[in-house]
Amino acid sequence: MTKPIYVLNGPNLNLLGSREPEIYGHETLDDIRDSMRKQAGNRDIDFRQTNSEGQLVDWVQEANREASALILNAGAYTHTSVALHDALRACTLPIIEVHLSNPAAREPFRQTNYVAPAATATIAGLGSRGYHFALDAAIKMTA
Amino acid sequence: MTKPIYVLNGPNLNLLGSREPEIYGHETLDDIRDSMRKQAGNRDIDFRQTNSEGQLVDWVQEANREASALILNAGAYTHTSVALHDALRACTLPIIEVHLSNPAAREPFRQTNYVAPAATATIAGLGSRGYHFALDAAIKMTA
Amino acid sequence: MTKPIYVLNGPNLNLLGSREPEIYGHETLDDIRDSMRKQAGNRDIDFRQTNSEGQLVDWVQEANREASALILNAGAYTHTSVALHDALRACTLPIIEVHLSNPAAREPFRQTNYVAPAATATIAGLGSRGYHFALDAAIKMTA
Amino acid sequence: MTKPIYVLNGPNLNLLGSREPEIYGHETLDDIRDSMRKQAGNRDIDFRQTNSEGQLVDWVQEANREASALILNAGAYTHTSVALHDALRACTLPIIEVHLSNPAAREPFRQTNYVAPAATATIAGLGSRGYHFALDAAIKMTA
Amino acid sequence: MTKPIYVLNGPNLNLLGSREPEIYGHETLDDIRDSMRKQAGNRDIDFRQTNSEGQLVDWVQEANREASALILNAGAYTHTSVALHDALRACTLPIIEVHLSNPAAREPFRQTNYVAPAATATIAGLGSRGYHFALDAAIKMTA
Amino acid sequence: MTKPIYVLNGPNLNLLGSREPEIYGHETLDDIRDSMRKQAGNRDIDFRQTNSEGQLVDWVQEANREASALILNAGAYTHTSVALHDALRACTLPIIEVHLSNPAAREPFRQTNYVAPAATATIAGLGSRGYHFALDAAIKMTA
Amino acid sequence: MTKPIYVLNGPNLNLLGSREPEIYGHETLDDIRDSMRKQAGNRDIDFRQTNSEGQLVDWVQEANREASALILNAGAYTHTSVALHDALRACTLPIIEVHLSNPAAREPFRQTNYVAPAATATIAGLGSRGYHFALDAAIKMTA
Amino acid sequence: MTKPIYVLNGPNLNLLGSREPEIYGHETLDDIRDSMRKQAGNRDIDFRQTNSEGQLVDWVQEANREASALILNAGAYTHTSVALHDALRACTLPIIEVHLSNPAAREPFRQTNYVAPAATATIAGLGSRGYHFALDAAIKMTA
Amino acid sequence: MTKPIYVLNGPNLNLLGSREPEIYGHETLDDIRDSMRKQAGNRDIDFRQTNSEGQLVDWVQEANREASALILNAGAYTHTSVALHDALRACTLPIIEVHLSNPAAREPFRQTNYVAPAATATIAGLGSRGYHFALDAAIKMTA
Amino acid sequence: MTKPIYVLNGPNLNLLGSREPEIYGHETLDDIRDSMRKQAGNRDIDFRQTNSEGQLVDWVQEANREASALILNAGAYTHTSVALHDALRACTLPIIEVHLSNPAAREPFRQTNYVAPAATATIAGLGSRGYHFALDAAIKMTA
Amino acid sequence: MTKPIYVLNGPNLNLLGSREPEIYGHETLDDIRDSMRKQAGNRDIDFRQTNSEGQLVDWVQEANREASALILNAGAYTHTSVALHDALRACTLPIIEVHLSNPAAREPFRQTNYVAPAATATIAGLGSRGYHFALDAAIKMTA
Amino acid sequence: MTKPIYVLNGPNLNLLGSREPEIYGHETLDDIRDSMRKQAGNRDIDFRQTNSEGQLVDWVQEANREASALILNAGAYTHTSVALHDALRACTLPIIEVHLSNPAAREPFRQTNYVAPAATATIAGLGSRGYHFALDAAIKMTA
Repeated sequence: MTKPIYVLNGPNLNLLGSREPEIYGHETLDDIRDSMRKQAGNRDIDFRQTNSEGQLVDWVQEANREASALILNAGAYTHTSVALHDALRACTLPIIEVHLSNPAAREPFRQTNYVAPAATATIAGLGSRGYHFALDAAIKMTA
Repeated sequence: MTKPIYVLNGPNLNLLGSREPEIYGHETLDDIRDSMRKQAGNRDIDFRQTNSEGQLVDWVQEANREASALILNAGAYTHTSVALHDALRACTLPIIEVHLSNPAAREPFRQTNYVAPAATATIAGLGSRGYHFALDAAIKMTA
Repeated sequence: MTKPIYVLNGPNLNLLGSREPEIYGHETLDDIRDSMRKQAGNRDIDFRQTNSEGQLVDWVQEANREASALILNAGAYTHTSVALHDALRACTLPIIEVHLSNPAAREPFRQTNYVAPAATATIAGLGSRGYHFALDAAIKMTA
Repeated sequence: MTKPIYVLNGPNLNLLGSREPEIYGHETLDDIRDSMRKQAGNRDIDFRQTNSEGQLVDWVQEANREASALILNAGAYTHTSVALHDALRACTLPIIEVHLSNPAAREPFRQTNYVAPAATATIAGLGSRGYHFALDAAIKMTA
Repeated sequence: MTKPIYVLNGPNLNLLGSREPEIYGHETLDDIRDSMRKQAGNRDIDFRQTNSEGQLVDWVQEANREASALILNAGAYTHTSVALHDALRACTLPIIEVHLSNPAAREPFRQTNYVAPAATATIAGLGSRGYHFALDAAIKMTA
Repeated sequence: MTKPIYVLNGPNLNLLGSREPEIYGHETLDDIRDSMRKQAGNRDIDFRQTNSEGQLVDWVQEANREASALILNAGAYTHTSVALHDALRACTLPIIEVHLSNPAAREPFRQTNYVAPAATATIAGLGSRGYHFALDAAIKMTA
Repeated sequence: MTKPIYVLNGPNLNLLGSREPEIYGHETLDDIRDSMRKQAGNRDIDFRQTNSEGQLVDWVQEANREASALILNAGAYTHTSVALHDALRACTLPIIEVHLSNPAAREPFRQTNYVAPAATATIAGLGSRGYHFALDAAIKMTA
Repeated sequence: MTKPIYVLNGPNLNLLGSREPEIYGHETLDDIRDSMRKQAGNRDIDFRQTNSEGQLVDWVQEANREASALILNAGAYTHTSVALHDALRACTLPIIEVHLSNPAAREPFRQTNYVAPAATATIAGLGSRGYHFALDAAIKMTA
Repeated sequence: MTKPIYVLNGPNLNLLGSREPEIYGHETLDDIRDSMRKQAGNRDIDFRQTNSEGQLVDWVQEANREASALILNAGAYTHTSVALHDALRACTLPIIEVHLSNPAAREPFRQTNYVAPAATATIAGLGSRGYHFALDAAIKMTA
Repeated sequence: MTKPIYVLNGPNLNLLGSREPEIYGHETLDDIRDSMRKQAGNRDIDFRQTNSEGQLVDWVQEANREASALILNAGAYTHTSVALHDALRACTLPIIEVHLSNPAAREPFRQTNYVAPAATATIAGLGSRGYHFALDAAIKMTA
Repeated sequence: MTKPIYVLNGPNLNLLGSREPEIYGHETLDDIRDSMRKQAGNRDIDFRQTNSEGQLVDWVQEANREASALILNAGAYTHTSVALHDALRACTLPIIEVHLSNPAAREPFRQTNYVAPAATATIAGLGSRGYHFALDAAIKMTA
Repeated sequence: MTKPIYVLNGPNLNLLGSREPEIYGHETLDDIRDSMRKQAGNRDIDFRQTNSEGQLVDWVQEANREASALILNAGAYTHTSVALHDALRACTLPIIEVHLSNPAAREPFRQTNYVAPAATATIAGLGSRGYHFALDAAIKMTA
């Protein structure tokens, strides 16, 4: 039996849909979860969100034991967490980093990235479609 | 009915009063809470402390739903937390940053500040009086 | 009649397939072009490669007049070309940046990126699949 | 007889009220002076403005001889004047730094601050209310 | 009755023994705990691990109240946590920093260290033997 | 009646003509003033020099009230004066920055420029002809 | 017979007039060329544009042999081309650098300038009028 | 008749003697002036102090016309004044920089020095004796 | 039959001999080519120059297919071309970098070098003799 | 017969015991040598001190030929000596770096360390006890 | 009996007089020694030169035991030697740093100074007269 | 009679041949010396090695008196020795810098080079052949 694909979301992503809907749209993180589950067919999707750095590290360690692939939108911890970096380095799964928007056009402190050097791939700026491309790639990599 | 004013305190502020009282005085964080409640009159004060970055982010998000204004002494997370910065950016309340001492006279790594650019105002170096000025301003801004 | 989608490739990408095939695989740039054309259905794909910065700038300007979307793997000019940056800034098309590998794990001089801040989205580290996701997104954005 | 409280204002603050009133409001520096005098009760307020760095240094030295406390909005000299820094260091009064807006959200060259390390406290981003809080604190410190 | 010695371990140290055993050996964090208890004789060892920065700060504060000495391997928080730095600064115990490997030979972002400036001593690169030397020193310092 | 054009000159420009005439020529600042007045036709030229930063700030503020355009050679204050920068930012006139020589070929500390970002245009390296081009442009902009 | 004056334009300047005409105006590079020719009287103007760095270097070398003066708007190569810098250093003509807008108010990577240190003079921020002032100066310098 | 030797003193040096006499001694700036005049014999000493940068620039220009040598303690303007640097560069006199204390052991912003590169010599850390050595050297250089 | 040795020259090297002959001598690039051919004996020398970065990249790729060794004087592209760096990295020939003069004694921007890290060896500062030493080494390496 | 363990000490360590004994204690370097010899049992200790960088490099080379392990307190050469770094890199012995105090809490120039990246382990801040732990580890590593 | 005054000279100072006499004069280091001895009266001068960093450290340590004051021209070790810095820090004598020329006008790497922060005073740019002023001050400080 | 050519070798070069022979080959520094002597014909070769910075400075000074040319492989002192730099600056001989390997591909601290700016030429990455090319050039330069 194939292991599930973990989709982990970091701080403030729970605000999606309610914050500035004219910009980010009305789609919520729950909507993304639901449509990923439809796309996944018989593959299982374990979809979570947390504002805590330690919780994210726990989940990445758990993913390495329990999952077949990891899709990660680490939010702001992307830019500050060496602990997350180490957990990802110790993780032997395919890791696909996702960002809804394009951080390259934002503040200088978002130009530091501790996730990307430990990830297999990155998709940014394609909104929720980025999650679906990541899932497509993750399924093919673990088929 | 008016929403309460949140007063959130970050890491190590729970040590106030017991640590170096000859410098910081014998006033504890509980003393500050009590005197702010007296000052607040019929306005409600929700006063909390945590050592956890994720918890602070949770509370800032909660404040945006439940509070009328936010007074924040983020302690050391002031200098390292992009996650807190993002939560504050998504928060539409008046935000008043408070520091007991004057961080401008301290180490270089305290010169990075992720709270101030997302705050409405900053008060530093006035000890616990800074909390009272912040409350005075918050009440006037939300009257 | 819909305008074609331009797929522009920068310096040294013509070496794909012949260089270190045990790492990059035996797939050539021509193979990627052919499979993108199949994927594109009735949409037209204009697929080119050049080692010249000036030529890339010419083509980006031409794309803005003649194309409906731009998929760009600028290779090393990603990291040095302000001229390309300006041409992309003047371009009102959806622009999707693609990289075969993950530049975040490479040399410091590859951490400077003049394409990403002017792009709509970025896909990196997914090999030739990145081109196909980019095409999928470009078709949906311009449908 | 108690010595007066000096309130010193640096370059361009004389433009207050006439410059972008939709942003900064119609309140002028004279208005601030008048309302501070009302607030001060029987305490004397010596309120001045200058565009000259040397003049500010002269006045800080004079304050040290003639005043009981110093409230200082040094404007742009905050960011460039080591001479002002030295004068403040030689000054044994309580010194409260005031800024109308929040400099933390402005240009990089405003992140250098030669006043704060020599000040007792800082209040920023509260508009003219910052002057009143400063006066309140100064009166209490020198009562 | 003598207070216990706290041995606190930060993020990802729970992976010890299962991750790359050909490099790090088959010894787990539990093995280290057990052999430290044997070495400690009649001294009590309070040995813990967490992936959470806030939890580490809580424990350092607790150690200051309940322990006689602190042995700390803060893992990745060594390099990013000003909150931990502040907690250690407020701690009046002997603090011995331990690292299994030699961080001086690793990535640039591991050259920033917020633990060492607040520690009494540092032992790095001696594997689990470092914990035993630290315990030896801690016992002698608190005898 | 049209307002005059202010031509303001900063520190050490009064030395022009007497200092190294084999390099800078025998033309003095008075000569430049006289030939600008001839060129100006019926437009009034208010031409001044000072070695004082505060005086320059005063004059820029006065220009904003009394002049139709501002031609400014700020000399060394170009590189150090944030106060001047702020005064220029508050000035709604066309502002044309002039330098006799080409500062780009000089010391690193002359590469910082607080005037240019607040100016409409810059002319450098054309000697006194730069003043005449600036005047020509200023007259056309305010005709 | 006097040699012509070369007017060389770098990348993306061919877009002038069609790009954001509400900002840059409807004047095209051809319009600038035509009005410079009228202004030039009996002096010959050789006016060109290219997106290629190598082509610009070729033309600067050719100018040194065939022209009497060089007016150069190098566009983005201003900020990245050491090759252009070297060609200009080897050129003994009067060289006048022109920019339509004021690069001092733009991105940090535009603060690097390889043309100015090798130029005789710089004119920036005066739109197409800058070309005419440059021509005026070039004619006088080579009369 | 020999021209006088100018001794110019910058900001806050007028506080000498009254500020921290247990450190700096009870000797005032007037005392230094008087003992220099005695030492000077038949040479004339023109001794001044100002807190104004522009005033210092005026005096350096005047010295170049009226004096035979310049002894300068520029105080804090040593570290910030490019205008002073330019005035000294234009001055053809022997220039001897004096500091009472040793700035090399002070804050980082005092490590920038705009006087020394334009001075003939520097004497620091010898208290008022530095003025006398400077005078001795100046007399010998201009004998 | 042995493949030829490519000798590739970058921007502005075609000026050799005509530019400052009192410094660089009267020897032209053609002279160097001719004397290298004589030195080469029965080995074939393919000797070229271009001002274009893209052309240099094309030729390095061609050399990898057609040559036995590469001697490269990349001129200013040495300091700016990541594209050239990548082409050299993909090239499996012995690569000998040559510079006529000693770039270590020149401007800071010439201290960045993208050729040397991808080259087998470097010879600098020996004038045209450097080409002959490079050829000697190349012949021995490919004998 | 087992080779000796070398214990090498760098500049100024010969002052130990006579310099600030109230801080560093009355223990001299000779005392440390004697107690290490007692601890070593039948293992031979070769214990030396020098103020010369070249001498230290000689001894490290000699250790590689004659010793079984190297304990090194390089004093200030820790922070400046690339020659020592290279000698240690060429040394195949276990190398244990020792510091009496904790350099992490000292000046910025002591944050550069050329010994640690070439060492097997580091012990700092434990006073002379660090030498004994180092000897214990060295004996176990070479048993 | 008073202890001697040590005058220590670092690398390359033995070349004085023979190197570029048109600049440095014909005075040799021996000449300076001899005239210092004459100036010293009944005070003993121990005057030495070495090219070795370790030797200088030895002598500074010896001076601390055997001398009453130290005059030091450390030459290039001024800019690189932390070992010398530490030896000077451990030295309780008055230390007067001397430089023949003015290093502030030289290369950037000469702006780092490890002697000055540990010295009592500095004299630079006065040629051999600096030695005599230093001796005068040393005699007065130790009288 | 012609003066000899000095060949000076810095720290750790005495290890050549015995250290990692599979990489550096079995050729020792003595082998290089012997083959250079054969190549030198009737020219005398003075060939030395030292690990001491001061010794190298002594020898460079001696070379300037006794030799006709200097070939120098300064090893690690290349990157740290300003004293060596000064000695080379004072040396009027042709100076050819040699490195066995290519330092441009090594650690950042090897990118600082104090020898090259004072050398006539540099040869790197050609192994011992670099010494022979250097000798060939030195003989021709001093013939």
